[in-house]
Amino acid sequence: MKLTKEQIKEIKDLQSEENVTKRVIAPELEKVLYEAIPVLDHGFIRVIDYMGDDTSVVQSARVSYGKGTKQVSTDSGLIKYLMRHWHSTPFEMCEIKYHVKLPIFIARQWIRHRTANVNEYSARYSILDKEFYLPQSQHLAAQSLNNRQGRGSILTGEKAKQVLELLKSDAEQTYSNYEKMLNQTYEGNIIDEKATGLARELARMNLTLNTYTQWYWKTDLLNLMNFLRLRADQHAQYEIRAYADVMMDTLKKWVPITYEAFLDYRVGGTEVSKKGKSVIKKLIKGEEINLENSGLSKREWNELMDAFDQKDKII
Amino acid sequence: MKLTKEQIKEIKDLQSEENVTKRVIAPELEKVLYEAIPVLDHGFIRVIDYMGDDTSVVQSARVSYGKGTKQVSTDSGLIKYLMRHWHSTPFEMCEIKYHVKLPIFIARQWIRHRTANVNEYSARYSILDKEFYLPQSQHLAAQSLNNRQGRGSILTGEKAKQVLELLKSDAEQTYSNYEKMLNQTYEGNIIDEKATGLARELARMNLTLNTYTQWYWKTDLLNLMNFLRLRADQHAQYEIRAYADVMMDTLKKWVPITYEAFLDYRVGGTEVSKKGKSVIKKLIKGEEINLENSGLSKREWNELMDAFDQKDKII
Amino acid sequence: MKLTKEQIKEIKDLQSEENVTKRVIAPELEKVLYEAIPVLDHGFIRVIDYMGDDTSVVQSARVSYGKGTKQVSTDSGLIKYLMRHWHSTPFEMCEIKYHVKLPIFIARQWIRHRTANVNEYSARYSILDKEFYLPQSQHLAAQSLNNRQGRGSILTGEKAKQVLELLKSDAEQTYSNYEKMLNQTYEGNIIDEKATGLARELARMNLTLNTYTQWYWKTDLLNLMNFLRLRADQHAQYEIRAYADVMMDTLKKWVPITYEAFLDYRVGGTEVSKKGKSVIKKLIKGEEINLENSGLSKREWNELMDAFDQKDKII
Amino acid sequence: MKLTKEQIKEIKDLQSEENVTKRVIAPELEKVLYEAIPVLDHGFIRVIDYMGDDTSVVQSARVSYGKGTKQVSTDSGLIKYLMRHWHSTPFEMCEIKYHVKLPIFIARQWIRHRTANVNEYSARYSILDKEFYLPQSQHLAAQSLNNRQGRGSILTGEKAKQVLELLKSDAEQTYSNYEKMLNQTYEGNIIDEKATGLARELARMNLTLNTYTQWYWKTDLLNLMNFLRLRADQHAQYEIRAYADVMMDTLKKWVPITYEAFLDYRVGGTEVSKKGKSVIKKLIKGEEINLENSGLSKREWNELMDAFDQKDKII
Repeated sequence: MKLTKEQIKEIKDLQSEENVTKRVIAPELEKVLYEAIPVLDHGFIRVIDYMGDDTSVVQSARVSYGKGTKQVSTDSGLIKYLMRHWHSTPFEMCEIKYHVKLPIFIARQWIRHRTANVNEYSARYSILDKEFYLPQSQHLAAQSLNNRQGRGSILTGEKAKQVLELLKSDAEQTYSNYEKMLNQTYEGNIIDEKATGLARELARMNLTLNTYTQWYWKTDLLNLMNFLRLRADQHAQYEIRAYADVMMDTLKKWVPITYEAFLDYRVGGTEVSKKGKSVIKKLIKGEEINLENSGLSKREWNELMDAFDQKDKII
Repeated sequence: MKLTKEQIKEIKDLQSEENVTKRVIAPELEKVLYEAIPVLDHGFIRVIDYMGDDTSVVQSARVSYGKGTKQVSTDSGLIKYLMRHWHSTPFEMCEIKYHVKLPIFIARQWIRHRTANVNEYSARYSILDKEFYLPQSQHLAAQSLNNRQGRGSILTGEKAKQVLELLKSDAEQTYSNYEKMLNQTYEGNIIDEKATGLARELARMNLTLNTYTQWYWKTDLLNLMNFLRLRADQHAQYEIRAYADVMMDTLKKWVPITYEAFLDYRVGGTEVSKKGKSVIKKLIKGEEINLENSGLSKREWNELMDAFDQKDKII
Repeated sequence: MKLTKEQIKEIKDLQSEENVTKRVIAPELEKVLYEAIPVLDHGFIRVIDYMGDDTSVVQSARVSYGKGTKQVSTDSGLIKYLMRHWHSTPFEMCEIKYHVKLPIFIARQWIRHRTANVNEYSARYSILDKEFYLPQSQHLAAQSLNNRQGRGSILTGEKAKQVLELLKSDAEQTYSNYEKMLNQTYEGNIIDEKATGLARELARMNLTLNTYTQWYWKTDLLNLMNFLRLRADQHAQYEIRAYADVMMDTLKKWVPITYEAFLDYRVGGTEVSKKGKSVIKKLIKGEEINLENSGLSKREWNELMDAFDQKDKII
Repeated sequence: MKLTKEQIKEIKDLQSEENVTKRVIAPELEKVLYEAIPVLDHGFIRVIDYMGDDTSVVQSARVSYGKGTKQVSTDSGLIKYLMRHWHSTPFEMCEIKYHVKLPIFIARQWIRHRTANVNEYSARYSILDKEFYLPQSQHLAAQSLNNRQGRGSILTGEKAKQVLELLKSDAEQTYSNYEKMLNQTYEGNIIDEKATGLARELARMNLTLNTYTQWYWKTDLLNLMNFLRLRADQHAQYEIRAYADVMMDTLKKWVPITYEAFLDYRVGGTEVSKKGKSVIKKLIKGEEINLENSGLSKREWNELMDAFDQKDKII
């Protein structure tokens, strides 16, 4: 992650602000406000603004005149109750805004979460930064053999070396040709005084999908948790999980009580189907149960046994 | 609008908060934060929280590292440009939250604006306030004769008196029977020690549509303006316009530059169809034009003439 | 439910249509298309239009060129997989449109589902039907003693009689005064030739919340299931559940494979929190576990024991 | 656009379906259903399904029991009225679903329209087609000199030749290295029997942004028009306009009356600000008016003069 001197100064200036407000504040989140928290090799997450805290969830659930809070234990009980029973609207009453720098192929996954507001850096209007994502060797995974949508073992030796070289040289070459087509380097120098540059909105098509882009992304607390539930999960692609993990930390700083309930009821919880419930009931009673008479598919059976630590029953 | 002593104290407590934040603040809006601004006979609007200001629009439009602003004149020019060209996403980057008390028949109009977050006071869970809307005599309008969806002249004399009496007595009687069915008065007294009360979720069905309800309502700046454009308009029903007018004032205090652009390009502006454009072009050239050769319907023609002050051409 | 002769004829005309299309059709749903299926005392549900069937879910999940289907067993497996893993976007690819007649207090619950399209009968423009909901005696429930948001035992005797009489007489009286204020009866007769009627948009405020309204409501298959999951649930208010139950039946006729998966994974399934999982694991292992050392609240404990049929452990 | 024999057969099979339905049909749209209409060099648009027609707009605006229609002229008048007054909900009552093949950099613009349902071909799961967009020479435009977000003159000669060669060779090389990293060719042949392939979700990052992707995209009639209004506009990037133009044609076949109103009130219409209205009023009256006393910016002035054919007043 490279920030220019000017950018560093702009961030510092914002961080030195001391405004007085009647609004609620989240003290832990204030500490990292505007900070560029590094993600992957050139990306970052910055919390730009927020609205509300844990008491705001309580306040709107009660449609109250004053602060939502009665006392921490009561608030915590109510927040857990809301989370458990999917009373989701009070969680929509808090809002957060991030500035994110991320590779384009990850941006394409991210944008599928529609209930959010987005302003992306425009490559029709401006020249994209000369930065592209190259995985660290421990993330250079082979195609999974049993999950068409996942990763398997880590590549090593010649194959790993070859992959990294290809990614690097192709990104550099396509970026360099992007500059050639624009007739302008990243630093702003005209390459050929007599030539005309291709329109930016066209030249960008030559860039590879690991090129970094950036955007402002704003969402409410409920939809942030929906995002994190999917993207901080072990089935998510590592590269987006890296962002989600940093955002989990900002969630904790912002709304610590909601964060705890989120860990218990969403992240660490599991869903059990009707058929799955019969299986579990029989297990509790010590009755005979196996894949064949369960009505589950093999995959479902294994997922269920895994969720309840019945390792010996996984087939 | 009646607030209990406890409610007044809760509001005062919130207003005496002096929290220090690195976030941007809207000084004029801070002054009225939490205040219950009266609307109609028993309703109110309270601004509970907000996120961002005019510079936030600019900041996200530029996807900038620092404050959005360069200088006020540049910012203002950019905001006007965004508004004029319907570049709407930067306006989604500011958020505001209101606490509103309003009659149920108005709540039903209001809720049709879907891009907002809402928590309504639950009449399944609690007893509704003993307050209902009665129009002031100058708002007691007859059905319009030429617009099936509008109001005509003001009712006077016996008819006005009769209407007000009916509204008042029916609301009082149905509320009193609501209490009877609940077997509990508004003040909480049990009416008949030996009887059981009807479930709240059922008893509420006896209330009239002018009974007041309340909710927390949160939306972004773009959708707030979409709401205000429709509801602060002269074609809106007076009762919802009364709320929209107060909200227009909070908009001005919050984002004064955006407010100016909104007045110029949305509230005070007009749309002209393709056929309408031909008519205007001919008017400018001083050519002969009339309803028959315009291709417009009579209603369209009149709307166009009215928009451009051609009163003498209205038919 | 009263339909006029003209309405019955209009429905019959639509049902006699035999149009030829290249689109997929849902044969069982076609059989009930346009039919007014009665709900409560005067309400109904009508399926007006639909788009897609089970194969459309499969087709879009595969982004295929032809029909989604390979063979029923494969399709069914894929649909179950999508449902289990919350791959929700393919379910958004089917759409359904209903015409619903329902009491206003139920319409107010219903409208909180925002991801839907709605056109409601306008009481600014037209006069509302002279019909209001009166519960059958078996649905006349007392306020629940342990759940502030629920129903308890059924009212009987004098109290039941009193409630029904109050509901009926108040609805009739307020409607009759609505007509008086409009200076026009429901049948269209002018009441007083010399008087002017109150604007419709105002007169409606005198009606009680059990008055029937109607709307066109359109949503996609995913959001229909989100609606049904909440509203066909035993915790939903009976009156909206009556509608949801009828819609469950239309779901079955429309997309039978998706319906089965929905019953297994959503309706009949349950969620278990992280703490709840530890409890279940201990139960399976036959280890000692009780409320105190579970980390659960009493309510959570009971909900968990109930979900897994441990009736003797409910406290 | 290359379709395999199998794909062509699948499409033909769908087109030979003759299902009988009670639903309304759009005869002109039926004729092109499922057809792959070519766009750009390798892209296409296919209409996969639809729900409703012009009468459905009318039907839901009236919340009617039967067909919406009374007679064509009445329907047309109502649709125009709804369009003119932004009564938008009835237009949400029709739905359409497309299958689209398009370059990734265009997909990224397209996806910003959030009110739609999308299923994209997964490059985590499958290998992307070996097809990438290369502009025809007449679309190879230079960066605009006065609009940072637009195109200027067409490139010719050596520069044009160079650009096309770079785009072609970079796309081919990065795709070929994509295959190398996957250790599998597009045709499915393993390249090196002893080597392991990189995970698909990683290998894709080496592709350039002009690689084609495909998706199912479904939206309602209102949001389709919102999309077309922006993307069929002359300010839209040519490559997305090419898709929008084809979709305009499908709109015409689907809902011809709505299409006409859309052309008149949206596509061919214009908006005039409050200040702009004063200018037009003075022009009509023949009063002196110029940029300086208009209160408009130069850019606004010129846009206004252009909209009303006052070419001689453009500065």
